[in-house]
Amino acid sequence: MRVLGIDPGLRKMGWGIIDVSGTRLAHVANGVCTGDGTDLANRLCALFAQLQVVLDGYKPDCAAVEHTFVNKDAAGTLKLGQARAVALLVPAQAGLPVAEYAPNQVKKVVVGVGHAAKAQVDHMVRLQLPGVQIAGPDAADALAIAMCHAHHARFAGRLDAAIARAGG
Amino acid sequence: MRVLGIDPGLRKMGWGIIDVSGTRLAHVANGVCTGDGTDLANRLCALFAQLQVVLDGYKPDCAAVEHTFVNKDAAGTLKLGQARAVALLVPAQAGLPVAEYAPNQVKKVVVGVGHAAKAQVDHMVRLQLPGVQIAGPDAADALAIAMCHAHHARFAGRLDAAIARAGG
Repeated sequence: MRVLGIDPGLRKMGWGIIDVSGTRLAHVANGVCTGDGTDLANRLCALFAQLQVVLDGYKPDCAAVEHTFVNKDAAGTLKLGQARAVALLVPAQAGLPVAEYAPNQVKKVVVGVGHAAKAQVDHMVRLQLPGVQIAGPDAADALAIAMCHAHHARFAGRLDAAIARAGG
Repeated sequence: MRVLGIDPGLRKMGWGIIDVSGTRLAHVANGVCTGDGTDLANRLCALFAQLQVVLDGYKPDCAAVEHTFVNKDAAGTLKLGQARAVALLVPAQAGLPVAEYAPNQVKKVVVGVGHAAKAQVDHMVRLQLPGVQIAGPDAADALAIAMCHAHHARFAGRLDAAIARAGG
């Protein structure tokens, strides 16, 4: 299973792709899409187009997007919402299932505690994907989101198997 | 000039199209795209697809989107941001210029005062587009946004002409 993790942002949209096979994780690629410029509509178009290239190039099976909504102000939250829409639309339009995880869920899976520091997340991503070259903090977050989804999908798979064994 | 006005919303996205020729306005069409369902990514896809059908069917020359960001809570603002991204992306991806207007700007142009009631906006839209059948309050707002853009574009045109006459 190939998972695309996305850390949405209007200026910098981190993405990370991992291959999951049982309990093994393998890094495929990571990077940051940029939405620079002053015109909002064009920035969204630029992010959309870059994310589409990632999707077409690496053909993931599913996507996971970070679900944040706490922000200091309404204008910031609105911007984040716009970036999130791009992160959700691109994989959903390609027919991929899109999961959403809160930052605390991601940290709990990757580091073990829900209130881990950014540096700890980065450290654990590097530890679990040996030799990975990370394009920046947003790309590290995106890889962590993909790892969180791999863990949840594995758990869901084990649960399905147990139900099948029990004849449910 | 054919103008597409959009009143963004995740559940109901109003749209209205008018033709502008000098000071004359003519109603073309209006309606509401719906983003029902529980899965956010699919709701955004549904809105995107419906708005694309409107764009392909009526081929507007430019678009105008309402720019609201004041909302009661962060979750509501985030949702609005996601809907706005769809409203901006669809025309921008088609190469259309996309203008944004605050609700007060729209009311000031259509009604004459910035703090007009919704019913007044609806009344003035019907008065200026005689015989119009309006699909709902969100569609009325979208027509008002298109009318606001027509007014601003006319003013910008007069300004350009004056500058040209002055040899500027």
